[in-house]
Parts: sequence; C-alpha cells; structure tokens
Amino acid sequence: MGGLLFSKLPRCAASHFTRRRKMNKPTILTGDRTTGPLHIGHYAGSLANRLRYQDSHEQFLLLADTQALTDNAHDPQKVRRSVIEVALDYLAVGIDPMRTTICLQSHLPALAELSMLYLNFVTVARLERNPTIKDEIRARGFGRDIPAGFLCYPAAQAADITAFKATVVPVGEDQAPLIEQTNEIVRRVNATAGRPVLPEARAIIPRAGRLPGIDGKAKMSKSGGNAIALSASPEDIRAAVKAMFTDPNHLRVEDPGHVEGNVVFTYLDAFDPAQDELAELKAHYQRGGLGDGKIKARLEAILQDLITPIRARRARLSQDRGYILEVIKEGTERARERTEATKRDVVNALGLFQL
Amino acid sequence: MGGLLFSKLPRCAASHFTRRRKMNKPTILTGDRTTGPLHIGHYAGSLANRLRYQDSHEQFLLLADTQALTDNAHDPQKVRRSVIEVALDYLAVGIDPMRTTICLQSHLPALAELSMLYLNFVTVARLERNPTIKDEIRARGFGRDIPAGFLCYPAAQAADITAFKATVVPVGEDQAPLIEQTNEIVRRVNATAGRPVLPEARAIIPRAGRLPGIDGKAKMSKSGGNAIALSASPEDIRAAVKAMFTDPNHLRVEDPGHVEGNVVFTYLDAFDPAQDELAELKAHYQRGGLGDGKIKARLEAILQDLITPIRARRARLSQDRGYILEVIKEGTERARERTEATKRDVVNALGLFQL
Repeated sequence: MGGLLFSKLPRCAASHFTRRRKMNKPTILTGDRTTGPLHIGHYAGSLANRLRYQDSHEQFLLLADTQALTDNAHDPQKVRRSVIEVALDYLAVGIDPMRTTICLQSHLPALAELSMLYLNFVTVARLERNPTIKDEIRARGFGRDIPAGFLCYPAAQAADITAFKATVVPVGEDQAPLIEQTNEIVRRVNATAGRPVLPEARAIIPRAGRLPGIDGKAKMSKSGGNAIALSASPEDIRAAVKAMFTDPNHLRVEDPGHVEGNVVFTYLDAFDPAQDELAELKAHYQRGGLGDGKIKARLEAILQDLITPIRARRARLSQDRGYILEVIKEGTERARERTEATKRDVVNALGLFQL
Repeated sequence: MGGLLFSKLPRCAASHFTRRRKMNKPTILTGDRTTGPLHIGHYAGSLANRLRYQDSHEQFLLLADTQALTDNAHDPQKVRRSVIEVALDYLAVGIDPMRTTICLQSHLPALAELSMLYLNFVTVARLERNPTIKDEIRARGFGRDIPAGFLCYPAAQAADITAFKATVVPVGEDQAPLIEQTNEIVRRVNATAGRPVLPEARAIIPRAGRLPGIDGKAKMSKSGGNAIALSASPEDIRAAVKAMFTDPNHLRVEDPGHVEGNVVFTYLDAFDPAQDELAELKAHYQRGGLGDGKIKARLEAILQDLITPIRARRARLSQDRGYILEVIKEGTERARERTEATKRDVVNALGLFQL
C-alpha cells in the first residue's frame, strides 16, 4: 500500500491521462455500490488488488450510485451519503487519482443510454436465467416483486464495462455469469453492426475469496454488524477480534483445534504478511497447545498495523471535502469523455441517427 | 389544416418558446416511433388533432427512434432513415416548428437516465401485468423471448412523459393502461421524494378510433400493404380506394348494403367534411340502390383533396434536408433544456448525489 502522498489534482490531469492511454495498458473497470463505507472484506477482496493495478492497467473505479439504487430506491439519501464515504475509502487505502480514474456512475449519461440500448439485445428469459440474478433475487427475498431495475442490472453492467471499453473486470466467483452476459450483448451488438465495435471482456476472479464476517457468516456487512470498517478505531478492532468466531470445540488450550472455518485463521490467511510462520502456527493449533488468545493477539496486531495509516489518512482527507469532490469531478469528466466516445462509436456502428 | 407557410426557423425560436410557456398552456406530449413514413391512419388518429393543439397547448412531438429500437434492434438503419421521413410528414401536414417542438428521443439523454431510475420504482410483475404490453407481446409473437427493452418500455414512456412534465397525453384506447403505469411511477417517485416533484398525466383518447387498413384489417401498416401513405401519388390513392374492402354481400347496386365494417364508410366517417350528406348516403346504401362505385368516387375525391397539398409540401421540403435537420436540431435543443431541468428536479427531490 505504501505511503502515498495525496496532493491536489493538478490541472494537467486529463493530458496526463491521455498520455498513459497511449501506453496500451489493458483497461480494467471495477468499483463499488455506494451503500456505506467499505470494510476490510473489501480490502482483502478487491482494494489490495486495485492498488497493484494502478501501474499495470488503465484503471477506472466506478462509484456505482445508480446501481446502488436498484435495491435502495426507498433510501436514496443513504446512497448519496455513501458516495463521499466510498471515495474517502479509496483515497485512504492508497488509490491515486493521478493513476486511477475515480468516477460517479450517475453523472455519466452514456451509461444509461447504452443500458437502454442493450436492453433491446437481451431477452427477459435470458435475464431471468442469469445465475447471479437468480441467487440475488432469492437472497434479497424479492420473489415476484423484484424491481425491474434489478432484473435489468446485467444490461446496465454491460453498459458500464463496454462504455469504458474495459477488457478486464475483477469479479467475485458468483459474478462470472454477469461477464458472460456482457459478452453475449457485445457479440449481438457487433453482429448487428457488422464489425467489432465493442471488445469482449475477461473476468478475473481474485485468488482471495470473499472474507467471512467476524461471526463466521459468509457475508461481511455493516448492516449485519459483523464487519470491521476501514475507519475502525483501535478499540473497534480489538473488540471485533475478541468477538471473532474460532473453533467452538476448541475449549482448552491443549485441545487440538480446527483451522478450517475458523475466522481468525481465514483472516490471517488474507492479511498475515508472514505466511511461513502462519503455516507453523496452524500446525501447532491443529495438534493442540495453542490458545485462541495467542492467534487473536497476532491477528489484532496485523489489523491494527493495516488500518492505522488508513484511518489516519481517512481522517485527514475527510477534513477536506472540497478535495474529495474535486477528485470525483475530474475523474468523472475524464470518464465522460471516454464513455461518450464509446456511445458515439456504437451509434455510428449500428447506423443510428446522429444529429 | 389550412395553408400554413413554412419559413426557415429564425434564431429567436428559443426565446419565442420561453415566452409561450409563461402563458400557462397545458403541456402535451405526443409522437411517433420512427419505423417508416406516416399514413392517413396517423392523420385521422393523431396528426389532425396535433394541428389543433398547436394553439391550445405547449406541444412536444417526439421522434421516438429509441422506442422504435425496442422491437427493431435487428434493423437500426430503418429506424434511422425514418427519422427524416416522419419529420417530413409532420411538416408536410402543417406542424409548425415555431409552435410545436419536434425533438429526437435518442438525443435526449435525460430520457434514458430517468428510464433507468424509474425501473427501480416498478416491479417486473407489474410490467408483465400491463395489458398493453401483454397484447403487444401476443401480437408480435415474442413469447418468452421478449426483448427486455420491450418489457421495460412503459418505464421509458413514463420517462418521456414526465421529462417534459406533460399533463396531457393523447393515446389510443388500448394504451390508456400505459398512462396509469406512468402515474403509478409518478406517485412512487413523489412519495419517496416527500413532495410532488412530478405531475400526473391525463390520457386523452381521440374520438376517432384507429382507422382500419384498406383491406378491413384492424391495423393499417405500410408493412401490411394496406395503408395509404401521406405521400401517396394520385394513382396510389385511386388504386387503394378501388381495392378497398366494402360489404362482400353487396353484389348488385339494388341490394341493401352494410355500412358497419365497410371500410369506405369508415374512411368517410373520418374524412368527409359533409357529415350530413354522408348520413343520407349511408341510409341510401343500407336500403339499396347505391353502388360501391359512387361511394368510392366520393371517398377518392376527398382523399385526393386531403393528400394533394400534403404531397406537394412534402416534395418541396424533401429537397431541403438541411432545413429538416435544423428543425430537428433546434427542437431537440429546446427539449434538452426541458428534460435536463426535470432530471435535476428529480435528482434533487430524491436527494441523490449532485456533483
């Protein structure tokens, strides 16, 4: 993560950006729904990778407020508030707006225009068959009362990906079908146009799977009360690790313990920089003689080390709302150029009317 | 229809428009899918009324190319070509771009943005229950392979209507449920916003129902080969009336004939300026002694009178593509101001993020 310094965005940002594009790095699109501040699950699952992509890829980070509305239309204010929170989290972990374009989905009209266009290139039956959508419908208890925006969200995601002409999209394992859906739309648009106006995208699935909640539940979430926020205080971190689910049958230090399903070890797998030592600790824990207190102390120290600088930067940056807005604004302007250009490409390729 | 003269659009059009708004006329939105030139069915069903609305209403006419794509995605070129054709038809019948705003749907991004937003305020089940959509799905033989854009089209129509803050929308009898759907979305948006940011719209159903094709089929369409285009030549008109469906049991002049389901009388109902004389003719036809030739001659003369000046203006205007483009461009700019303002109103009222 390093100790990146944040300076005000110089005026030459756009040309800097243009220069970088010429270097032919692959374009990567990623982002987060703005429904609340990010937590260490986001760090392990995506933010850490995004820090690496800053140099190897042309990276766009989408503050997905429009998508957040697909199941938060009843609470648009939460979605609005979270825009700044998520942007703060990005900058706090070390995303550099000079190397990564942070942009706001709702302020890129080409995304809505391409979404509406793509809805004509996918059938309702196909959307309903999408395994990710099926799972989400079940998980959210929508039943037949699924908001239309939620069913249509794969087309909107295809618009996001293709508008940036992204060829690499990091997704959770359960989201790979969405990229396949995107590529189906791409192929139909290209076939109708008679030429490859849009590139297909490749899903990359991060090695680190989804981090469970501190209670061992599959999904870490602020609303589930089982998350550790990137802005967590030292006391929050301590309390969270203390409450963390381990092996319920590991009652005495001398008993053999399980490391599978043991959240402390899952977190150590994700965050411990000394993986050799960790392997030894696991063996010790499994044969007995290593208490939960010891491994929790190790994890807590690691998480304090990880979060302390993030929290400090976040606190500093949160004093300068103007700077955050400037970062979002300049990134969104750059993104607008890119996405409008793609829309024109598609409109031209399909032979639609152009005033 | 009168003998309106068409002049080049003066530069003051926008301020003229603004002046007119202040007069508090109700706003009416109407338009046509750009899938081919218009025919006399459009004239009887809507164009004639639109000529009247030019003075009594603030009228927006939408060239609905985006909506045309919902079931023509395989042939975008047809949709593109038809934009100019439909605009030509508007001007040829006497739509005055100084009094009516002619605008192009695909060039109003706020419509797509509001559509995507509204999809979050309507469930899939509700869209599927829409009787108009149900009928259309059946009529077009989509079955389960209905394009998602087609299912979502009521939300897009709600976006069109509300973006202009239209309170009056002329629709066919079968389309009234679409206005009810729009108003449901309006009420949900207003309820979420906590204040009436969008007005509800009222459907007006023209007295003249849908004109059948010359073969007596319910739907007149160019593709069905049973239409009379607004640009029809004198010979086309003559041939169409000659081929027109009457009463198949009315074999000899002296036989009693039926006027119901007799296309010639249906057209005379729609176009004959002397409705008293027409009532007498009907009585004569019903008791026997009036031949099809006579009533066809009467109808042909009426249609020739109707179409001759339209065809002449259309031919003249079609020589000046630059003028047509200018009309569309200026109208679309005016419409863009209006629709962007509405989008901002909605975003503000819902408390969404505004950069």
